[in-house]
Parts: sequence; C-alpha cells; structure tokens
Amino acid sequence: MSAVTHLPEPADFAPPPTATDLDRWDEADRAARPGRLARLRGRFEGASVEAYLAVRSEHSRYLSGFVLGDGEDRVAGHSGQLFVGRDEVIVLADSRYTIQAAREAPEARIEDVGYDLPGSWAALTSSVGATRVAVEAGFVSHALWRKLEAAAPDVELVAVEGWLEADRATKEPAEVERIAAACAVADRALATLLPKIRPGVTERSLALELEWLMRTGGAEAVAFDPTCLAGPQAALPHGSPGELPVLGGSVLLFDFGAKVAGYRSDMTRTLFVGEPSERDLAVYELVRRAQAEAIEQVAAIVDGELDLPSGRDLDAIARGVIEADGRWPAYRHGLGHGIGLATHEAPSLSRLAPDTPLPSPTVFSVEPGIYLEGDTGVRIEDLIFLDADAGKTERLTQFPREVLSVGG
Amino acid sequence: MSAVTHLPEPADFAPPPTATDLDRWDEADRAARPGRLARLRGRFEGASVEAYLAVRSEHSRYLSGFVLGDGEDRVAGHSGQLFVGRDEVIVLADSRYTIQAAREAPEARIEDVGYDLPGSWAALTSSVGATRVAVEAGFVSHALWRKLEAAAPDVELVAVEGWLEADRATKEPAEVERIAAACAVADRALATLLPKIRPGVTERSLALELEWLMRTGGAEAVAFDPTCLAGPQAALPHGSPGELPVLGGSVLLFDFGAKVAGYRSDMTRTLFVGEPSERDLAVYELVRRAQAEAIEQVAAIVDGELDLPSGRDLDAIARGVIEADGRWPAYRHGLGHGIGLATHEAPSLSRLAPDTPLPSPTVFSVEPGIYLEGDTGVRIEDLIFLDADAGKTERLTQFPREVLSVGG
Repeated sequence: MSAVTHLPEPADFAPPPTATDLDRWDEADRAARPGRLARLRGRFEGASVEAYLAVRSEHSRYLSGFVLGDGEDRVAGHSGQLFVGRDEVIVLADSRYTIQAAREAPEARIEDVGYDLPGSWAALTSSVGATRVAVEAGFVSHALWRKLEAAAPDVELVAVEGWLEADRATKEPAEVERIAAACAVADRALATLLPKIRPGVTERSLALELEWLMRTGGAEAVAFDPTCLAGPQAALPHGSPGELPVLGGSVLLFDFGAKVAGYRSDMTRTLFVGEPSERDLAVYELVRRAQAEAIEQVAAIVDGELDLPSGRDLDAIARGVIEADGRWPAYRHGLGHGIGLATHEAPSLSRLAPDTPLPSPTVFSVEPGIYLEGDTGVRIEDLIFLDADAGKTERLTQFPREVLSVGG
Repeated sequence: MSAVTHLPEPADFAPPPTATDLDRWDEADRAARPGRLARLRGRFEGASVEAYLAVRSEHSRYLSGFVLGDGEDRVAGHSGQLFVGRDEVIVLADSRYTIQAAREAPEARIEDVGYDLPGSWAALTSSVGATRVAVEAGFVSHALWRKLEAAAPDVELVAVEGWLEADRATKEPAEVERIAAACAVADRALATLLPKIRPGVTERSLALELEWLMRTGGAEAVAFDPTCLAGPQAALPHGSPGELPVLGGSVLLFDFGAKVAGYRSDMTRTLFVGEPSERDLAVYELVRRAQAEAIEQVAAIVDGELDLPSGRDLDAIARGVIEADGRWPAYRHGLGHGIGLATHEAPSLSRLAPDTPLPSPTVFSVEPGIYLEGDTGVRIEDLIFLDADAGKTERLTQFPREVLSVGG
C-alpha cells in the first residue's frame, strides 16, 4: 500500500456548472414531467384512486417544478404540496407563495388554501372528481389525516408509501448529470481545502471553510451540514464538528456533499494528518478493500449481464471483507443509500434492505466504515452510477481514495 | 421623516457569546430540565396517560439535551425521539447516535431501537408500565401511528397537539439571553455588510456574505437561509435570493437570523440603494408606523398592568394602521410569530390566532409589510421580549429602523 506523493488539486476535477448547463437541466425537467406524471397516474387504477396528495417537497419539485429550499417546508405550511388528479396538477400555496408557484410551475393550477387544507379539502377533491385519494401516509401527520377524513367523509383516504420514492430511484440522464456535477463541486472543494489543513485548526473552522468553498464554487447549497471529525471523534458515524483541533498523527474525516440544481452529492474521505500509525493505516486499507470489492463485484455483474444484486447483497460483500479479516468490528450502519433530490433515498443498501435487484439506472453511495470508540474511525464513501442496460458502472466521486497525508 | 446620516457599525452591537456564556446556558438548561419534565408530566393525569412520545427534535433538546442539527432529523430515523414515562426519560437512538446520546443526555436512558420503533414499541411501553401514551399527532406520520397501534394492541395512543409548544412559548431567562445573543449576531452581521452593498452585486452573493458573517461572528448556524431580495423581488414575502443584481433607486430587503446555542433570531430590514423614490419612502414610513404602533400599544398595556392582548389583537393594530391609510393593501401573512428553539413557534400573531392573551414571559416577531407585485416590497421585523410580571417589553433586535440609504 502506497501513499500518494502529490495531493490532488482543484483543476483535477470538472469545472462548476455553467448557465447553459442550468438551462439544459431546466429544459430536461420540463420535458420529463409529463412522463413522470404518467408513471404516477399509471398506479391510480391498481389502487382504485382518482387523485394523489404529495406532501414531500422533493415530490413537488419532481412533478411540478415548484421549489422549496431545505428547511423551508417547516415554515411553508401546505405551500408546495401537490394534488394530482387524472388530468390536472394543483400546487397548493398560501399568499406568501402564490407568485412563486405561478412562476415555477406554469403548467399547474395554483390553489390558495391558506393555512387550512382541511377547510379546502371537500372543494379540492370534488374539483377533480376524486372520491378515493392516495395519500403519502409516511409523511402526512396523523392529525392532518384525521382532519381530512372529517372534512370530507365521502372521500376515502388510501394510505400509500413509496410510490414516488420508487419512481425517483431510477434516474434520468439529466438527473445523473446533476449528481455528477455536485460530486465535482465537492471533489474540487476538498482539493482546495487540503493545503489549509494543519494541526491546531479546529474541526468547525475546516467544516465551515469546506462549505464556503462549495457554495462559492458552483453549489446552490450544501447537501447537508458538512462533517469534519478529528481523531477519536471520527468514531461517531454521525458526529458534528466542534471546537476540537486537528491532531497530528491522527485521522481527519470529512463527510459532505453539494447541491446543484436540486440534486445532491455525498462523499466521505478519511485523511491522515502527518504520519499515520500502523494500526490506522491497516484499518484504512481494510475499509478501502471492503469498498472496492463491493464496487468491483457490482461492475462485474453488470458487465456480465447477470441479474443485478440487491442492496442487501452488496452490503454483505463489503461487510464480509471486514468480518473475514476479523481484527475490527464492521460498521453497524448500512453500506449505502440512493441519492438525488434527497440525500437519502431509495435504493437502500443494508442488512435490512429488500432482497430484490437494484433499480437501474440508479445512483447510490458505497460507504463502509470501521469505528473504534474513543480511538479512531475510518469511512470512505463514493457515489456509483449503475446502468444495467448500458452495461456500465461509474464512480461519480473522482477524488482519490489512496492514503493522503496532509498538514505534515 | 429623516434618513440616518451615518450607517450603523458592527461595534454598535453586543459582542458574540463567549465560552463562559455557552457554559452558563448549558448549566441553565440542565437546571431547568426537571421543571420542564414536571410540567409535561403534570398533564399526564388530565389525559389519563402514563407516557409521552416526543418526535420533534426541538422537544428532545428541550427535555433531554440531545441535539440534532437542522435537517438532520431527515436522516436520523427515530434517533433523538424521546419517550417520557412518569419516572424515566428514554432517548431513542440507532447505532449511529448512541455514543452522542449518552454524552449529551446523561440523565436519560438510551434505547437503541435501530430503524424500527414499532418493533420495540411493546417492550418500550411495558418497560415504563404505560397502557395509554400521548403521541404528538401533528408530527407522527399516519403510517407510523398505524404501525404502533398494530405493534401493541393493548397500548392506546392518545393524539395530543401543542403540549410542549405551549410550554416552550413561555421563556426562561437563559432562553431569552440566547435569543438576544442571536439577535446581536445578526445585527452586527448586517452592519458589517452595509459598506459592501452597491448596484450590480447579486442578491445571492449578498445573502451568502451575510450568512458567512453570522457564522464567523458567533452563530453556530443560521436560523434559516438568509433572504436578500432586490427591487420588485421584495414583493415576494418568501422569495429566495437569485442572480438578480442590486438596483440603484430601489429597495433591498434582507430577512435573516442567527442560531446561538440552539436559539434563533429573525429580523427583516428593507434598505434603499441610492436615492429612494417618494412612493417607496411613503410605503416604508407606513410600514414603520404600523410596526411601531403595535409595539407601543403592547408596551403601554404591559406598563399599565392591564390584561395582555391576544396575537389577534396585535395583528389588528398593525393591519389597521395600513388599512386606515388606504393607499396600499396590508400584508396578507400574519403580523408575527414566537421564536426560540424553532424559528416559528407559539404564540402566533395573526388574523387566525387564538383570541386569548399572549403568554408571558415570551418572545415574538412583529413584522408588518406592504407588497406591490412586480414593483416593490417593504417589511420591517424585530423581535420583542415581553414580561408582564416585570412590566417590561424590550426590543431584542437593536438594528435601527430609520431609513437607510446604502451604495449610493
């Protein structure tokens, strides 16, 4: 195992998206929307429903073009929620959002329901002739469900889960392009940060700098708050950066991603500050091998035109490498997750994932780790694009996975 | 009406919180938690329940000390949710969060329920001897509700809404201190930004700079994505900053807030770039007067030891000023909202708010506006601390409200 002799540089990665890219993606979304709606409506008959209530903001964007920023759904009330009939798409909005809705979702009808969806429910359902409505039961609160039932007793609510999540798991080419662009923004940001890492700098200041580099380098936002964890803190699989300074002779773990035109990236790199210990190097090498074997096996399967593995299979491959080695316990979280408009979406790669073949084309993370509490932690995470029909798998994360020693 | 002749400067506002402040607030939370739990449990008998399931991350932090970052609840599963029995507080966590939970909530029992709360529900409820459990029905999904019912048919779920929201509406002194500190961080950030505002700079770059100034100036995070809207864009009460450049002779609206030790601020200022038009000045003056009258009247009522007004009363006062003037339509949103661990919380100040006296001590925003679509918009927002027993109202937002002309 050899350490990289020169550090990656920003210019090693693709440049930020241009205004032309953004326009092309907008246009691709507009062109794709009728197909997305047809796929959703194709489920209506089987469930004997005539309409669908979409409450997740990703679903509104996917189906109508209306965009809520991250966290904005906490204050937006029903604004941005979507009511899809057989022939019509209705964006719900209160007065704060009606102008924006008309601009971003020009093909939809905008309905100002104020802050009171139950008050409009009878009129809304009858306006599209619906007597049975599919509702995202995993995201509508129990209280709202009861109020809608009471507001229109003749309209039956049908609990559905995972319809759009399943649809969104297969990716259109322009969706994959945006995820790849978000990966490049993140890759470049970390490459730009490397020379600034040295012992004594705090986790928090590095995480903030990394965020700044993404947001001034082509990201419209971060995919999630970047994590930077020094030494023993890296044993927390979902830790937050604090005032701890970077430690020489120890690991430094970054978990972060960018958001480009609505689509997200997610990557983890574990660097070494100064001279790594032999134990830490061995942990790193094992995690790297676990990740590589899972990725190589899915590539071989796709290339051999065999049946796609399940998310459970892939998790077992990476986990098996660490368990067979036997020196340290394997990660207890899952191996990975789909990604797109949401950071975590279908498909799931874990011990609990469904034992059915992965969707295709799709994008997912592969992120095994080893965590030694109070001591150290290593995780390596890349996004993989898989297209079975094209016989293709591709790493969208381009940042090297070799041992990198910084700040020495 | 006179314009301010010198611009506010960063040094006009309180300095960022110190490590001593943070320790004092931590200690205050620790000391307050038994009282907060007692108040919650005080509702058990009236509702004939023996336990409470808290799913909002603000409630976990309030009752146990366990902190999830904004947006982290989207990927945290059940981690950070809280099960409160008569004698015990249980923090739910999966393996990614157990170490953090033990550290941040040392008085609580940590229960690793993985990703499957229904699978643990029977054991969890019986471990505290609960056969009727109050559940936050406005935040638990309908699907989870059904699964919990099925998992332990002998345990009855009782839908409750607003218990902790009502408790959190009255603020402890150390909570108000943190909101005030978050206000000062935001005030100072805007004062620092003023000299950089000039025609041609984009909304997005100013919003990003403002965020950066808060996050390097004492904020652990922003309270929400800062808004910067130029000219006609300011007519969107919840618009997002875009690539539009700042326009001379037009308004520039900033709506933003900081987060300090979990507590948030929220303020809006509408500035003028270069020379304001007479019409824009008149709109501004009217909004300012509407805001001032609402605040003055609540101060007079508190000072006179009269019954506190309702949020509906206060909204009517500010709205009445604009309607009596008659030149432009009043804001269609509410006059304001409580603030604390969440940006929007109880009490509500609006036409739809309950017609009951405001809680006390409490903190809320007062933010009237006038929006002329396609043309211009003005909103002014300050946070007000009200303590009826102390006969006191206080503006926590210190940034001046006089007409400010920048970039001229």
